[in-house]
Amino acid sequence: MIRFYNGLTLEPSGVTENEVWVDGTAISYVGPAREDMPAFQRQVDLGGDLLIPGFKDAHTHSGMTFLRSAADDLPLQEWLEKQVFPNEAKLTAESLTAFVKVAFLEYIANGITACFDMYFFPDQFVQVAKDWGFRAIMCESLTAGDDPSRVYDRYEKYNNMGPFVGYRLGFHAEYTNGMETFKTVSEAAHHFKAPVWCHNSETKREVDECIARHGVTPTRLFDDLGLYDYGGGGYHCVHFTDEDMDIFARRGAYAVLNAGSNGKLASGIFRLREAMEKGVKLAVGTDGPASNNALDMFREMYLINTYAKLREENAAAGDPARILDAAVAGGARAMGLTDCDAIAPGKQADMVRIDMHRPNMRPVNNVVKNLIYSGDPSNVRMTMIAGKVLYENGEFHVGEDAESVYRAAEKHARAILG
Amino acid sequence: MIRFYNGLTLEPSGVTENEVWVDGTAISYVGPAREDMPAFQRQVDLGGDLLIPGFKDAHTHSGMTFLRSAADDLPLQEWLEKQVFPNEAKLTAESLTAFVKVAFLEYIANGITACFDMYFFPDQFVQVAKDWGFRAIMCESLTAGDDPSRVYDRYEKYNNMGPFVGYRLGFHAEYTNGMETFKTVSEAAHHFKAPVWCHNSETKREVDECIARHGVTPTRLFDDLGLYDYGGGGYHCVHFTDEDMDIFARRGAYAVLNAGSNGKLASGIFRLREAMEKGVKLAVGTDGPASNNALDMFREMYLINTYAKLREENAAAGDPARILDAAVAGGARAMGLTDCDAIAPGKQADMVRIDMHRPNMRPVNNVVKNLIYSGDPSNVRMTMIAGKVLYENGEFHVGEDAESVYRAAEKHARAILG
Repeated sequence: MIRFYNGLTLEPSGVTENEVWVDGTAISYVGPAREDMPAFQRQVDLGGDLLIPGFKDAHTHSGMTFLRSAADDLPLQEWLEKQVFPNEAKLTAESLTAFVKVAFLEYIANGITACFDMYFFPDQFVQVAKDWGFRAIMCESLTAGDDPSRVYDRYEKYNNMGPFVGYRLGFHAEYTNGMETFKTVSEAAHHFKAPVWCHNSETKREVDECIARHGVTPTRLFDDLGLYDYGGGGYHCVHFTDEDMDIFARRGAYAVLNAGSNGKLASGIFRLREAMEKGVKLAVGTDGPASNNALDMFREMYLINTYAKLREENAAAGDPARILDAAVAGGARAMGLTDCDAIAPGKQADMVRIDMHRPNMRPVNNVVKNLIYSGDPSNVRMTMIAGKVLYENGEFHVGEDAESVYRAAEKHARAILG
Repeated sequence: MIRFYNGLTLEPSGVTENEVWVDGTAISYVGPAREDMPAFQRQVDLGGDLLIPGFKDAHTHSGMTFLRSAADDLPLQEWLEKQVFPNEAKLTAESLTAFVKVAFLEYIANGITACFDMYFFPDQFVQVAKDWGFRAIMCESLTAGDDPSRVYDRYEKYNNMGPFVGYRLGFHAEYTNGMETFKTVSEAAHHFKAPVWCHNSETKREVDECIARHGVTPTRLFDDLGLYDYGGGGYHCVHFTDEDMDIFARRGAYAVLNAGSNGKLASGIFRLREAMEKGVKLAVGTDGPASNNALDMFREMYLINTYAKLREENAAAGDPARILDAAVAGGARAMGLTDCDAIAPGKQADMVRIDMHRPNMRPVNNVVKNLIYSGDPSNVRMTMIAGKVLYENGEFHVGEDAESVYRAAEKHARAILG
């Protein structure tokens, strides 16, 4: 057992002074100091630092680290056609493994304890997650040319691989698939009673072209096909109509916000005020490192709030507490990790120690606003997943040396990009 | 003498593999390894890390750390009238000193080696800068009620206090001053042949009200009064007209960009494309921690580039190399620190070691884009000013314990804010 004491905890009820005890993979106690303490293997004096539930990166493409800083400042179509697609075609199982490891190091260093990923080479991807003990949920990435019936086998296979790995039904997007895919996935959703996910309304062009093809928005199309009958959600959701928001609210579907990527690709700003007013469930994701380029949830939370202010031309727009909740609990629930959404007894011990002794956190007037508006990855002092410390004081504990991870990634990046 | 080797340097010509030798306060050699090496007091193996000139925070209000996270998510006027002005009225020389120290720790931890500050209690402010060896240039902060003739004494006094401290002519803004201030400062500018600085065109309302009062924009008003006859510049410059940009370009005046603050206060987005096309000189500042809330130039550089993309609805907008240059060399020249603008022999040794062994920097496809799009304060491994290491591996070397700085700031913040 591990005891954390003399610090603060971010619990569903707010920020409080509490101890946290971890037994095995789970949290066993949250509350004031007690006389009847068990024997602990380790006792951590937090010295006033803050424990928060780990950030959940609810939309990403981990393997795209190899394109970081290699495909910036281009118009979206040129970016996809000249930099992304031709280089992705050169990926191998071995290079994908190397690139995913870089992303996983970055998640852990930045206080992210789970990711919701959509990319290639699922067997290699889940192997890294299992080996390192990092929570990685995959979303099916079907595009035209793939056999959509593969979702049945994959669903059974990747949802029976233990606590760190999972698989959710989905497809890449409306504009990369036809009706056969949507219908097959809808049948699977009803068969498994499972939620469905995809990129949705990221750009105005995507929505316009869907309306031209199908007469309705992507969200309306998918809902008419029963794809949201068991929930799920969409990535980006920038160009949602009011009706799209109503559908998501009614279905309990999640809008996963990707402010960094939407800004850098000039896709636009999510309609946060309207979504909150309509009660749309929210989660937060970084998107992949080719379009963001950091896997940094502090930056995402800051951008979501400040983009909302710019969009509304109102400094009072945004909602830091709600966006922080979306980045921790919202993401966990969106991904189906309902036992990783809070610091509370019985929940999985997926926690991050926030260093309150860096000057950007001082003075401590409001802890939540500190996290949103002045926090950054330098404040992550420790990241624990399932009761195991994977990162602490700048050092990784993943069973592999960070330098060897970097060397492999550099070698494969040079082989692909020159 | 100190030797840095086995790393990269960001020089005016680009990123190269070079050694850097520091002799006293200055850089004495930049180039390949040599046989004829002098005796060094310290030799630093950079292990592939990058040395950059320190960031210059070209517009800030350091003392406002006490309002960090205490005055967010309010409309601009309410923010000023309810949170900023009444609490600033309670500042004392002692509390200001405590709050400035928090800001200076944050600058140093984030790779900022100089700041261009506008605030109260100049004697206390410069004392911290001199004691710690941090470069702090003050801009005169005149508002209605102040005697503008004070600029003559202050100019002589604060520009003769040694290498770390300086004073530039200026005033708060058009909307907080009358013609007497502008005329007095213009006379002083001509007397000293000195540049003039102020907040300029931060909000649309400010520009509209100036036009209503004076028939012209603030920039045109100031230029007509001869205030830019020796250069200078403006903070924010969000609502610049084409004519304003032409005036700045013609006068060699600097637009200091404050993207973070302009976003959080919903003031708008600087017209970067037009400014670059017209050849307006650029620098970068964080603005104060009440409106930003981090003193983080990585975030500013990222925001300037991505806000430009959103404003232009074009993912190709922005210019990372130029914005990085604005954040290091542009700021130095704007502030008059022309010997702190580059890693080159004879320049002051104001340098930052960027940790390239964090996952957000890997793989290394493009160092400049890494700094802009995925860099963050966790990448700052060392900050040196005038040849002295003030921060290294998370530890401060300023002659004072960070914890005692935090304690004093907390005490005074509670006394003011409750």
